[in-house]
Amino acid sequence: MAAANASLGVDALPPEDELMKDVDTIFKNARQAQTGSLNGFTQSYILPYGIDNYDGVIIDPTGLPEDVPTFVVQLQASLAYWNAQQRKGVWLKLPLPSANLVLSAIQAGFTYHHAEPTYLMLTRWLPETPSTLPPNASHQVGVAAFVLNEKSEVLAVQEKNGPLRGSGIWKMPTGLVNQGEDIFAGAVREVKEETGVDTEFMQILGFRQGHQVAFDKSDLFFVCILKPCSSEIVKQDSEIEAAKWMPLVKFKAQPFFQERSMLKRMMDICIASTEGHYQGFSPNELNTGFQKQNSYFYQGPVH
Amino acid sequence: MAAANASLGVDALPPEDELMKDVDTIFKNARQAQTGSLNGFTQSYILPYGIDNYDGVIIDPTGLPEDVPTFVVQLQASLAYWNAQQRKGVWLKLPLPSANLVLSAIQAGFTYHHAEPTYLMLTRWLPETPSTLPPNASHQVGVAAFVLNEKSEVLAVQEKNGPLRGSGIWKMPTGLVNQGEDIFAGAVREVKEETGVDTEFMQILGFRQGHQVAFDKSDLFFVCILKPCSSEIVKQDSEIEAAKWMPLVKFKAQPFFQERSMLKRMMDICIASTEGHYQGFSPNELNTGFQKQNSYFYQGPVH
Repeated sequence: MAAANASLGVDALPPEDELMKDVDTIFKNARQAQTGSLNGFTQSYILPYGIDNYDGVIIDPTGLPEDVPTFVVQLQASLAYWNAQQRKGVWLKLPLPSANLVLSAIQAGFTYHHAEPTYLMLTRWLPETPSTLPPNASHQVGVAAFVLNEKSEVLAVQEKNGPLRGSGIWKMPTGLVNQGEDIFAGAVREVKEETGVDTEFMQILGFRQGHQVAFDKSDLFFVCILKPCSSEIVKQDSEIEAAKWMPLVKFKAQPFFQERSMLKRMMDICIASTEGHYQGFSPNELNTGFQKQNSYFYQGPVH
Repeated sequence: MAAANASLGVDALPPEDELMKDVDTIFKNARQAQTGSLNGFTQSYILPYGIDNYDGVIIDPTGLPEDVPTFVVQLQASLAYWNAQQRKGVWLKLPLPSANLVLSAIQAGFTYHHAEPTYLMLTRWLPETPSTLPPNASHQVGVAAFVLNEKSEVLAVQEKNGPLRGSGIWKMPTGLVNQGEDIFAGAVREVKEETGVDTEFMQILGFRQGHQVAFDKSDLFFVCILKPCSSEIVKQDSEIEAAKWMPLVKFKAQPFFQERSMLKRMMDICIASTEGHYQGFSPNELNTGFQKQNSYFYQGPVH
């Protein structure tokens, strides 16, 4: 399954990527092609669609009928046609206003693939063989920000919500990286949001991979070191109970860190980094050749 | 938004985690609590539910009515009741067989949150303030495996599908890491699947973060170095056109790698690593204190 979805050299673009990027072109070409013969199938009964490089079908969401009876008829006719063409996966994207079509799609053998607030993606695998359609996103990504000033004070916060609420534990600012956001940018943003302090991103010192974290998904949690560019603290009222510059010696001595082997390890490499005994990964803007925009490659120093 | 979802010390467990883990307990306690007064609301009209630590409501999917009219009445009564209680987010998980209830939920103001093949999760934010519910998974995770034998030959493959199909380019084995799978295990698995070669995982040498890769999600792509433990190649027929041990000098000289700055960089650190000039991150099994099972922390050496 996975192998089919990471086909680009040393890159991991899945099949859909190349499709979705030029999906308008695909549909335009497909409509032109579909003006020809359909081997006995009635043209007007076939839902507008495009074909991907994996013998799959992408139904054009802008060509969906509004009423359920028409959709049921067209979907059945289309599935018969695509079956006859020996197509493999069928992708059906239903925008939120087409929620009235969900039940009919499930009754026609579709299952859910993924969803975003504005749409639901369903798939149906046509062949008898097991599906090789790629899964949806598997990980959330978080950051912790170690920010030490020239007085050996750590930027520390207490949180208003969550399991540490009311515990009195001082921790590094943490947060989730948004879809589409670079890790280094997410770290700088979280520090600014929670404490008001401006920072410059330095390195990723290490990361933890956890499983069954959010909605059974996995989690990558990057420990980052940042350099403070300002010192005044303006704490975020909604999320943060308290924020302060705290002597590193006191911060790291908290039993919370000392009693958990992973948290202690994270703390140790943060300190080793500030003492010049540790090198993490830094972001480098480079071009993959597969996408127009550059992206960032994180690596350590070559000696 | 993100800050609220990464509340654990230097960890990034989102609010749902603690809930979902003990969701049975939550529902059991809630049912007991709900046998008391409901401030004028009729008990039997309220859908069974639990309360999370964020003043949110989790509807018990095992307590959903089967027919639409009953669901509509109960959902409206429940939303009125939860509104009166000043609850915030409402989580509604609809298993695939409850697809008949999707439209009514959307009509009651729910939107899609995420979906897996067997269920659809919907949410409704009750307050007037902006939603602080966490987003769904944001990243897919891929690996490339650099496997060099003692004759300075690289394990190289050509792919049957995808953009490089028919290009003649020899590349490292790559693939997607599964939800719930450790990166090091995913790398070993992909090499075995594609080439039949057994390997021992050594290090992550670097990684690329890309955006708008699959279904507009982001992508983390880890370049790994592995040590071969066997040499015989048994290629995967479905995905792999050809596989062989290829002299490193010829492999890296391919224009495909030389003409793309990121691919060249990846190749350079792979070679630097084999020559002892580069250190990546290695996995260490440690305990976070937040989950029963250990997880892996990837870091470099402390000097």
